[in-house]
This record gives sequence, structure tokens and C-alpha cells, in this order.
Amino acid sequence: MSSFELGGHTFTSRLILGTGGAANLHVLERAVRASGTELVTLALRRVDAAATMQGGLLDLLERCGVRLLPNTAGCYTATEAVKVAHLAREAFETDWVKLEVIGDERTLLPDGVELLTAAERLVADGFTVLPYTSDDPVLARRLADVGCAAVMPAGAPIGSGLGISNEHHIRLITQSVDVPVILDAGIGTASDAARAMELGCAGVLLASAVTRAADPERMATAMRHAVEAGWLAAGAGRIARRSHALASTPDEGRPQL
Amino acid sequence: MSSFELGGHTFTSRLILGTGGAANLHVLERAVRASGTELVTLALRRVDAAATMQGGLLDLLERCGVRLLPNTAGCYTATEAVKVAHLAREAFETDWVKLEVIGDERTLLPDGVELLTAAERLVADGFTVLPYTSDDPVLARRLADVGCAAVMPAGAPIGSGLGISNEHHIRLITQSVDVPVILDAGIGTASDAARAMELGCAGVLLASAVTRAADPERMATAMRHAVEAGWLAAGAGRIARRSHALASTPDEGRPQL
Amino acid sequence: MSSFELGGHTFTSRLILGTGGAANLHVLERAVRASGTELVTLALRRVDAAATMQGGLLDLLERCGVRLLPNTAGCYTATEAVKVAHLAREAFETDWVKLEVIGDERTLLPDGVELLTAAERLVADGFTVLPYTSDDPVLARRLADVGCAAVMPAGAPIGSGLGISNEHHIRLITQSVDVPVILDAGIGTASDAARAMELGCAGVLLASAVTRAADPERMATAMRHAVEAGWLAAGAGRIARRSHALASTPDEGRPQL
Amino acid sequence: MSSFELGGHTFTSRLILGTGGAANLHVLERAVRASGTELVTLALRRVDAAATMQGGLLDLLERCGVRLLPNTAGCYTATEAVKVAHLAREAFETDWVKLEVIGDERTLLPDGVELLTAAERLVADGFTVLPYTSDDPVLARRLADVGCAAVMPAGAPIGSGLGISNEHHIRLITQSVDVPVILDAGIGTASDAARAMELGCAGVLLASAVTRAADPERMATAMRHAVEAGWLAAGAGRIARRSHALASTPDEGRPQL
Repeated sequence: MSSFELGGHTFTSRLILGTGGAANLHVLERAVRASGTELVTLALRRVDAAATMQGGLLDLLERCGVRLLPNTAGCYTATEAVKVAHLAREAFETDWVKLEVIGDERTLLPDGVELLTAAERLVADGFTVLPYTSDDPVLARRLADVGCAAVMPAGAPIGSGLGISNEHHIRLITQSVDVPVILDAGIGTASDAARAMELGCAGVLLASAVTRAADPERMATAMRHAVEAGWLAAGAGRIARRSHALASTPDEGRPQL
Repeated sequence: MSSFELGGHTFTSRLILGTGGAANLHVLERAVRASGTELVTLALRRVDAAATMQGGLLDLLERCGVRLLPNTAGCYTATEAVKVAHLAREAFETDWVKLEVIGDERTLLPDGVELLTAAERLVADGFTVLPYTSDDPVLARRLADVGCAAVMPAGAPIGSGLGISNEHHIRLITQSVDVPVILDAGIGTASDAARAMELGCAGVLLASAVTRAADPERMATAMRHAVEAGWLAAGAGRIARRSHALASTPDEGRPQL
Repeated sequence: MSSFELGGHTFTSRLILGTGGAANLHVLERAVRASGTELVTLALRRVDAAATMQGGLLDLLERCGVRLLPNTAGCYTATEAVKVAHLAREAFETDWVKLEVIGDERTLLPDGVELLTAAERLVADGFTVLPYTSDDPVLARRLADVGCAAVMPAGAPIGSGLGISNEHHIRLITQSVDVPVILDAGIGTASDAARAMELGCAGVLLASAVTRAADPERMATAMRHAVEAGWLAAGAGRIARRSHALASTPDEGRPQL
Repeated sequence: MSSFELGGHTFTSRLILGTGGAANLHVLERAVRASGTELVTLALRRVDAAATMQGGLLDLLERCGVRLLPNTAGCYTATEAVKVAHLAREAFETDWVKLEVIGDERTLLPDGVELLTAAERLVADGFTVLPYTSDDPVLARRLADVGCAAVMPAGAPIGSGLGISNEHHIRLITQSVDVPVILDAGIGTASDAARAMELGCAGVLLASAVTRAADPERMATAMRHAVEAGWLAAGAGRIARRSHALASTPDEGRPQL
């Protein structure tokens, strides 16, 4: 897989993992390694909890050689999210942030207005901002316009496993912004991840699909192959869809019977 | 990928390639190698044509170490298909046959009645019969019942690139027959192949999706990863679909602001 | 709604009702009247049971002025179905028959091979044969070719309420046979029925969607409107699908601000 | 169809028509009458243009007894939309406004941030605000929270005829706001309109689907039936979706053969 640029950094893997939902650190480590990921997102508060664990989440990530992407999960206003981002910068010594500003407890979908406000402030504060957004193409473009390093639209609600509810919107986003588009949330299984890449995404971010699978390590391996498959297919020039058949073997030259 | 049994033979690759639509033998060879396939299907009449080519299709397959699966493409009756199968057995010294009995020129969908008749005869004649069938679950079960070594339902019309039109039917087939189910026809891109495996297929057969892609070698590589991804995901116990969100990071323990 | 010809008879309503699943005859009568149907199908054995009811199913249908369409529900072979059709002709003094030959207890999908055999025999015996078939376009055409008065493909398994699983196949059928196509089985709600008509069906047959709805009379009214809506839309020349927007109000002439 | 309340006014028809795209006023009048609509939206600038036509659009609407809903089509900022709304109030002597603030020329999708700003101002200015919004459930709830009289999510881009791209989002919106939800934009044919109602919408707004159909009057009639069908079905308690069959006619009591 060819490398890709995100926030001025070069990655080989186009798969970003979340840590939420993992049964324990041992299982998580095996999944992280199997996935081949180089970037893992975690919430500030999870680290606090992890601090008490033997081994700890941060040690795990360092051991696996993956970069840390703090997120602002659980924030409901721009003000709150900006504060958490600054705390995270201090705690982790990184100005990268996955910006989440949740608008709805039931769907955990982002609040676009608060999100855009927070993104503008954090860009001004020197952060590399990767916003988790809805699949609204206009909001995605505005996030790119204010200086976000990527836009990360939801395929479906977090943890829903519904895949990509609106392929048309994801395609519109990948066609209309110049920064990398990373499908974030909704992935349930491997074909969903492949499909995201085929729609023009530069990468995929997922957590539950791997951490809550019956066999997280195996699903992580599946996702690694799926992202590779989708990325290759996106660049291979797929055949057009046709409503009728096209014989792969034309009729001429068949044996006389 | 774990090996799988088909017609008493063990394969490592779960991807079967057709040769129709390839621009030339050189392109085809690169695609065959990239795909990792161990089984390639070709029509009797294509070989005749190939005979005149420098190098030849059969040499290519032998060089790549892949097994040959003759097919009866272009046959419209049981009688005709049975004749072609016997000619192919003589010509290629194999009793394997991909049985096609086409019922409709426009869609190239199989004629179930003729197909079942031909399958019964060829099984009686000692063939290892791999029938290309519609996605009708009842017909698939009857084909398995008369002794076919696999059933190969169409996801969509040959060459259409529409993917899997009726996932429900493919799932019903994989749940109701004991022989391997191989998705044959309709695949357009990598996620389609992954999806077929997730629905419980043991393998995928495709031609145009690779041979007519802008970059056949790259698409062949994509398909190799996609089949692997789908097969791994099918066995990894995916998360359930939920209409609402499930926080990957629960609320407790967030930092006080 | 313009009238349509079926088996040499002219109908005004394009909705055919099944009686199975109704709570009682009173509820059924209200649903039949609300639906506007002129043709109701029932199984021979249901009539036996009904004979003991006060009022009876046959009286109800006569009172509502609807024509009777006996069916061969529950038959698993051509021989059995042909016998039941003859019994029904004697019992009900009609040579119309909805031909069902079931291939699978779990999905109640038809067995195409047995169905075709039974259809041929019943046509030869002078019946007006309306076969319940799968959505296989080749089988549908063969049924039309042997003289069936209509073909009635399943949208999805009987009672499943899944709607139309494979719109592509239903469209292919309506484009390739000359007899009326009636969508039979799978309808769950009104939009499914409208969709069937938009795909070119001449009518819709449904039972559970109405009889098992919480309010059968209301759902029957909904279905009457849905079939009308779909039939009108099918002939009104719908707009093309476009991946981008088309302003209904062009930009020229906007007020200067 | 039971009446419904919108902005303190009671309507019998749940279908709102746009006028854009009509070939001429004669065709439009026949479509308006056939649709049964009681509310028609038009852009301020269209009226200017219409002024030169014999008969005129406003006369037509008065003659048909339909209420006027001015819209702010073509506005790209909150400031611009607020100005147009005030001009329309003066011109048409109504404080109702369909609020459009477009964010993207290609998709004509709304800009959520500008839309919310404009809605707040217009509510404060005493308007009855009916905002055309994306299918983002969080934005829809915020629009309801600031006092809009309804929310009108897009099923798909204006004029696209794609139907409802994300049924899940439309369902989430109808479940989470207390004001009427009116599906606005994307409708291509009758089943789309029925589906919108089944998802819990209180009404449907469409223009191109009727005005640009080959036969606008016939399609308007289809839409009238479709909205009625969907509304009835939504309240009739549809059957559950099942992956397997449920016999409408149970096996017991079949005739002995």
C-alpha cells in the first residue's frame, strides 16, 4: 500500500484504531499488532483509568510503535472540547486531536455548529485537527476550509455496525474536499471498510468492529486486508455497472456439435 | 487463509478466475499471478482460438501452476452442455466442469430446468460438476442433492458488475447446502467479493471484474485481499447491527472541567 | 385506474388478496371491502375449515362480489399440485388456479422444476394457470412460454414482509414476458406495493401484509392507494435519477440585495 | 386522510408542491389540482418573472385555493436569506417562509450553520419558519429547538430523484423532534413519497418529480395517492420483517390425496 500524508506525517497503514470496547490490554495489543495500524485514538479519560492497569495503555502503544491520537469523546460543546484538547496536548505532548463534539446521546452524532466552532479555535491554537463529523457534504467542506488536516465523516452511528448508510454523501465528500477523508464510525465488518476506500476515502477509523468482535485479532487482520483491498480497487479502475450481461466469452468460435 | 476442499482437492486460494475479457496473454498472466488463484476456468472454444497464439493459454496456466476448470459457456440446452463437457474432458484430461446452461441471451442467466438435467447426467458420467446457477435457494439445494461438488450462484448477471443483488438469497443458500457455495458472476469490485465471503461463501469466481478493469493486475491483488478479508471476517464474529449508537468510550471517568 | 385483462377477464382493481392470517371473517370482510379487490385467493383446505364457520368464507366472497382464485398452497410436487387443482376445479367450479409448488419449508419458495411441470399439465387440462414463481427471469419466461395466463414472482419469502429483495430481477421479468406480471409474496407495507407497480407489474397479490397488520382494514385501504399510486407513476414518465442536484428554481432573475 | 397542523393552520392534504420546472402555467394548474395540495412554495424571484405572464402564478394559486409558501431559494448566507424572507413577507403578506440557505452549488444541500442562524433570526422576527435542512438528526433537533414550525430534511439532493438516501436518518429525525417533519427534496416517484410517510413524516414537499415528469398531471395524482397510502400504512401497524417465511395458510387440514 502506498503511503499517505496526514497532518504532515507519512503513514503506511490507512487503518486507524480506537481502543474503546477492548476486553483487556492483552486482547487489545494482539488486535493492534494484527491490524498493522500506526495511529490509535484514545480518550483522555480512558488513560486515567488505564493508569491503574498493570502495563497500561500508553506503554502498550509505545511498545507497538503506534502514534497516539487523543480524542475529545464525551464533549457536548465547543468550549468543553477545546478544553479537553488542551488538556490532552499537555498530557500527551502531541498537538494532534480527534475532535468530537457530540450532539445527541442516543446516536452520538456530532453537533455540526459546535464542531465547526471548536475546529476553528483549535486550528488557531496550532492543533492538527481531525474532526469526527456527520456525512453532511457542506459541513465537511467547511471543516476543510477552516484548516482541518482531514475530515472524518460517520458512515453510521458509533458502534452501530450499520456500515455506510449514505454512500452518495461519502462520495460527494471525497470529491469535494482536498484534505484526506477518513471514514469514522459505523463500520461493522470487512466489506464496509473496503467499500469506504472504494468511495475515495484515504483511510478508515474503527473501534467496536474489532474490539467487540468475537475474535478481535482475527477481525483486525480482516480489516487490514479489507482496507488494502479497497484502496487497491479504488485505483484499479473498476468495470462499469450494467443492467444486462456482458459475456466474458463471446459466442464466436464455439465448437460445432 | 485456511485451505478448503473442493471436489476432493485441497486449495489454499478461495478465488477462482475466468479468462474471458483479458486484453492479451501477458496481461492475463500478471493478473493470474497477482490474484494467487489456483483454479482458472475457460471455455472449450477459447482454447481453440488460443491455440493460434504464441505461448498459448494452456501453457500460461501450466506455467502459473493453476488447475484448469473447463466450462460449457454458450450452451443453451442440457444436451449441448453435456456434449461440450465430454469434449472438454477428452481435450483437457480432467473430469472437472463448470456447468453453464444459459437460458437468456440478454442476462446470460442459467436455465434451471436444463441445468439440473445436465448436472444429473454429468454426475452419473463421473464428472466433478460445479454448476453456475441462479440465486434460487431451492434450485441450489436440488443441485447439491443430485451430487454436484459445489453450487455457484450468480450475484448478478455475468459481466454486470452489480455485485450481489439479493444478499438474502445467497445467505439462504450458504445456510442450506452442505457443499461449498461459490459466488459466481456479478462481482464488480473488491467489497463485493468480501461481502460474498461474509455471507458464508467458500469462494468467489470472477472474470470481467479483473480482466476488464483498467489495471487488471492491481484489481487481481485487490480481489486476493478482499477474499481473504471477507473470509476472516466471516469467522471473526462480527458485532450486531444496532439502530442506535454504542459509545466505545463510556461516560464514566471523564475529566472534570 | 384503467382496467386490465387477466385470463380473458377484465378487472378494475389490480390488487389480489389472500385470506390466510385473518383473525376472523368479520375482520377479513372489512379488509376485502376496503382493498377494493375483485379477486381473492384461498387454499382448498381453508374452505373445508371455513365450512364450519357461521357465514363462511365463500359466502363472504360472494357477498363482496369478488372472484375466487383457488390455490394449491402446501403442495410439494407437481403431481400433488395437479391433483389439488383438479379437486379445486370441481369444488369451486372455476378453472382458474394459483399454482403453488413449494420447494422449501423454511422459505416456502417455489420449486421451479416441479412448477413448470405442473403448469404444463394444467394448461393442457384447460386451466387458467397463475403460477407463484421465484424471481428467476428465465423460469418466468418459460412459464409464460408454456401458456400460463400470468407469472407471479415472489418479491421475498411469503409472510416475510421484506418487500422486493431484487428489483433488478422483477424489472427483467416485466420486460421479458408478454403476460401480466403480478408481484406475489414479500410485500410488507404500502411503499413495497407501489414499488412493484413502478417496476412494471400489472398487479400485486398479498395476504399477511393486510391480514396480520395491527389494523387490517386501514392497511387494506393503504394498499389500494399504493397500487393506484404505483400504477399511475409507472405511466407518468418519472424524472431520471441524477447524482447531483438540479435547481427547480434557476438562478437567473433573483432579486438584487 | 386526517388533517394535520402546521404553523397553527390545519391542512387536509399532506403534500406540498413546488412550482419550479413546470413547462407552463396551464400544465402547472392541472398538476396542482390533481395533487390536491393546499400549500405551494415559490421563490420570490419566480414571481417577478411570472408577473409578465398572462394569468400569472399568483392568480393561479388563488384560483386553486392554495396557500402560498414563499421560499428563499438561491440564498447562500443567513444574511441574504433573512433579507429575502422579509421582502417576501412584504410582497405576499404572509409571515410563512420556507427557509433555504444553500451551501453548495453542485448538490444544493443546505449549510447547517447559516441555516440555524437565519432560522433563529426569523423566528425572533415573528416568522413561521419551515427550514429545508440536511438529514442530520442533530441539526434537525436544533432547528426545532430554536422555534421552527417544522423541519424539512432532504431525502436526497434537490432534483436528483434519488428518493431517500438514508432512511435511518429520516427515522431518527421523526423520532426525535416534536414538530412536523416534512420530507423535502429527492423524491423521484410515488413509492419514495409513500416511504417518507411510513418513516413517520407528517408530509412531503416535492417539485421536479411532478413538474418535470413526462405527464405532470398523472404524476401529481400518483403522489396524492402515495402520500395517502404511506400515511395510512404508517398508522396501520405493519407486519414485522422476518428473514424466513411464514405460511399464510398453515399446513393442518390439507386434503388427503
